[in-house]
Amino acid sequence: MLEKRKLSGSKLFVKKFGGTSVGSIERIEVVAEQIAKSAHSGEQQVLVLSAMAGETNRLFALAAQIDPRASARELDMLVSTGEQISIALMAMALQRRGIKARSLTGDQVQIHTNSQFGRATIESVDTAYLTSLLEQGIVPIVAGFQGIDPNGDVTTLGRGGSDTTAVALAAALRADECQIFTDVPGVFTTDPNIDSSARRLDVIGFDVMLEMAKLGAKVLHPDSVEYAQRFKVPLRVLSSFEAGQGTLIQFGDESELAMAASVQGIAINKALATLTIEGLFTSSERYQALLACLARLEIDVEFITPLKLNEISPVESVSFMLAEAKVDILLHELEVLSESLDLGQLIVERQRAKVSLVGKGLQAKVGLLTKMLDVLGNETIHAKLLSTSESKLSTVIDERDLHKAVRALHHAFELNKV
Amino acid sequence: MLEKRKLSGSKLFVKKFGGTSVGSIERIEVVAEQIAKSAHSGEQQVLVLSAMAGETNRLFALAAQIDPRASARELDMLVSTGEQISIALMAMALQRRGIKARSLTGDQVQIHTNSQFGRATIESVDTAYLTSLLEQGIVPIVAGFQGIDPNGDVTTLGRGGSDTTAVALAAALRADECQIFTDVPGVFTTDPNIDSSARRLDVIGFDVMLEMAKLGAKVLHPDSVEYAQRFKVPLRVLSSFEAGQGTLIQFGDESELAMAASVQGIAINKALATLTIEGLFTSSERYQALLACLARLEIDVEFITPLKLNEISPVESVSFMLAEAKVDILLHELEVLSESLDLGQLIVERQRAKVSLVGKGLQAKVGLLTKMLDVLGNETIHAKLLSTSESKLSTVIDERDLHKAVRALHHAFELNKV
Repeated sequence: MLEKRKLSGSKLFVKKFGGTSVGSIERIEVVAEQIAKSAHSGEQQVLVLSAMAGETNRLFALAAQIDPRASARELDMLVSTGEQISIALMAMALQRRGIKARSLTGDQVQIHTNSQFGRATIESVDTAYLTSLLEQGIVPIVAGFQGIDPNGDVTTLGRGGSDTTAVALAAALRADECQIFTDVPGVFTTDPNIDSSARRLDVIGFDVMLEMAKLGAKVLHPDSVEYAQRFKVPLRVLSSFEAGQGTLIQFGDESELAMAASVQGIAINKALATLTIEGLFTSSERYQALLACLARLEIDVEFITPLKLNEISPVESVSFMLAEAKVDILLHELEVLSESLDLGQLIVERQRAKVSLVGKGLQAKVGLLTKMLDVLGNETIHAKLLSTSESKLSTVIDERDLHKAVRALHHAFELNKV
Repeated sequence: MLEKRKLSGSKLFVKKFGGTSVGSIERIEVVAEQIAKSAHSGEQQVLVLSAMAGETNRLFALAAQIDPRASARELDMLVSTGEQISIALMAMALQRRGIKARSLTGDQVQIHTNSQFGRATIESVDTAYLTSLLEQGIVPIVAGFQGIDPNGDVTTLGRGGSDTTAVALAAALRADECQIFTDVPGVFTTDPNIDSSARRLDVIGFDVMLEMAKLGAKVLHPDSVEYAQRFKVPLRVLSSFEAGQGTLIQFGDESELAMAASVQGIAINKALATLTIEGLFTSSERYQALLACLARLEIDVEFITPLKLNEISPVESVSFMLAEAKVDILLHELEVLSESLDLGQLIVERQRAKVSLVGKGLQAKVGLLTKMLDVLGNETIHAKLLSTSESKLSTVIDERDLHKAVRALHHAFELNKV
């Protein structure tokens, strides 16, 4: 459980800046200038920083030279220095502007995690020190991505990293907003590089954001979105490099959000492959063996339904989608497996992409699915596989059709219009 | 006060490796190999590491880009990451060799210092955690040069840095020896680059070592020697890169040490200047103003006696020696000072060096001084100024005469012979 502590006085923002935003001395100065302005305007601020872009990879590469399977504890001790460097530099940049500031490691803040080195989970945050700094008018600058375990060992957080640190601090401090500064100005209806009519969303619901994040929108990691939702922390995504309101990810009246356009965005995933194993009953020993194999290789898959809408029959084949980069290692393992167990015929399709309509209450509206398939059909794009849920309708297509598909769907569902 | 804790069982060594010794992955592997061998032979070891060579300077340079007068607290937060990187990498290298090892920050060891950021002094060391690791057969790898202050802020130690950490741990753990691994095989009678007949000393007394260190022998910083002497820690200086016994710096029977050759080594200091102010009584207001000026500029000086052996008169001039690099800033300040106070005539002599006979009971033996001046005179080297103490006889000469002087004295005092 997170300890909560109410702050009196002006508005409090927890602001997280990623590796690109603090990737050079020049960029640190840009951020410091912006923070100094906000401080002068009376905002209370807690900063959370990532390591300077490239630093974490540099450190991992050093470790890999010694031991590609180095212990997770020592890797955490090593890479946590990246954030310690950026927070110290930011403190100097703020102090030079006359702003009182203090850099703090995860240990100094007392960000307690479990002992899962490399993918630790925050268990509690002690706000006493942070609150006392804020009361003294000092801007705390906290190292993201790190904490300490019950033994006092340095840990790094799992996926979501510094975003999760920011959300946890915002929750514990009851901040008015947790602001995630990135290199894009907010959440868009789809990737503006693919469709220039893509529109920045002023507001998005948590569930939809979560789905967008899971489906590959890079602005936020799903784990930090879930964390924010759980602790009811208002999240905002903004650009570090240009002014703007960004996108507010809002909890609150779910029914009100549902009133909004049911399709709110189009998410994409590239570099995927599908694997179908014919004649494989889900109850069989072979199926269990396949699942065990996927778990062992730590391959994230999504099980999907082959698009045979008119056939009503027991599922006799299993299809799933995985990152193209993982195909070869999986095939190798399956080959080993097939020496002792007949897996049946394997069908591998590479260079696939997934395009997803994201919104609320989508599964109930069968017409949406039909419309989606129609739009794609009109563009002679073959939708190969389907996956649906309350908040998304996904289809797998050839990667070379991706841009065409996104533009057609974005237009057909009028996502460029408010 | 240091907490002391006795260890049972095999011999315990605290081993410190400097930046050059851990300056690359290759060198870290070399050290790890050596530590692994010692571990297999049953030694108990605590490692203390500096940052990889160049890393600390890289970090200071980053800070200087933001603010050349960055706060000492934030500089310590920044540069302490250097040691954290090298200890994590060393732990990985040992673990890959099957040696149980754990990296520890100054905070994790509980190396308590005062709050003098950038030049903190160790106040206590908690040995409980280290001892428990040793009892479990785990090699603790401690970040040198760092500690925490009473507020939990990261501090870095003053001059002597990681050597002082090693001595403090050796004292607290009552280690059998504190071994300082450097890039030279020990302490020599003089610089082997100047006189190839220079001989490595097997043993040297603390007082003599301290004098050597103060006079510019680079192997150990005087502060760590003093610290070792105070806590009666046997110190040994060895090479990281070649096998050998190194030099043991030994406390113990002072009279026995005094029985050894009275002159034990020749120390040198280069890049010096002398400044003489004529007609300046030490009791005068002007003299006080001069001292205040030196203190303000934090210039270390050594006051010396002009070599006018036959004159018996009140001292009417003040001479002192300082680093050549500090001359210009001092002259500038003295010029400002002279606007309000007549300082008299200034004589500046640059490109000076100091050559010192180092040993025990030297002041009592007037013959040594005469012999020294004779040797130099025979080489037509003009000894300009003298400074004597119980453990050294120093003279200032032209820097261009330095090598000739060292070789002549080394030969005349038979330092090449055991």
